[in-house]
Amino acid sequence: MDSCTFNIVKPVGVLSTVEVNGEIRNKEVNFISWNGRPPVVDIRTWNADHTEMSRGITMTQPELMEFLRSIKKLTEDEKR
Amino acid sequence: MDSCTFNIVKPVGVLSTVEVNGEIRNKEVNFISWNGRPPVVDIRTWNADHTEMSRGITMTQPELMEFLRSIKKLTEDEKR
Repeated sequence: MDSCTFNIVKPVGVLSTVEVNGEIRNKEVNFISWNGRPPVVDIRTWNADHTEMSRGITMTQPELMEFLRSIKKLTEDEKR
Repeated sequence: MDSCTFNIVKPVGVLSTVEVNGEIRNKEVNFISWNGRPPVVDIRTWNADHTEMSRGITMTQPELMEFLRSIKKLTEDEKR
């Protein structure tokens, strides 16, 4: 397994919390720098002290903008 | 491996496109019903005809609302 470093540059929000086998798991949004690269928006589940993570997805700034635009468009379409 | 059924209830947007070994891969947002469950917002990468997918993440409607609220708050904080 390759080593992997990460730095949570900025916590953005906690989307939901579940308890699994007595341990808290938070689905979080963070800006994270992976392996020293520029920070990306990152959505994944973490334990309370960020020592364990699930697989997740990342979005660059342009991808985030497109995501927000898509959701806005969908909401507007549904209002019609 | 467990069998898994999915139904792309509503395409929402394409966040980015890359070509890997000559094949197009789209990072997409869709509303997807997994195994007959209620549709969730789903972010993952697909090939052009949706026969291959990467791992991704899903968000329920409340998680999506919290995501949008978190991003909005972040943007407002940065304006101050």
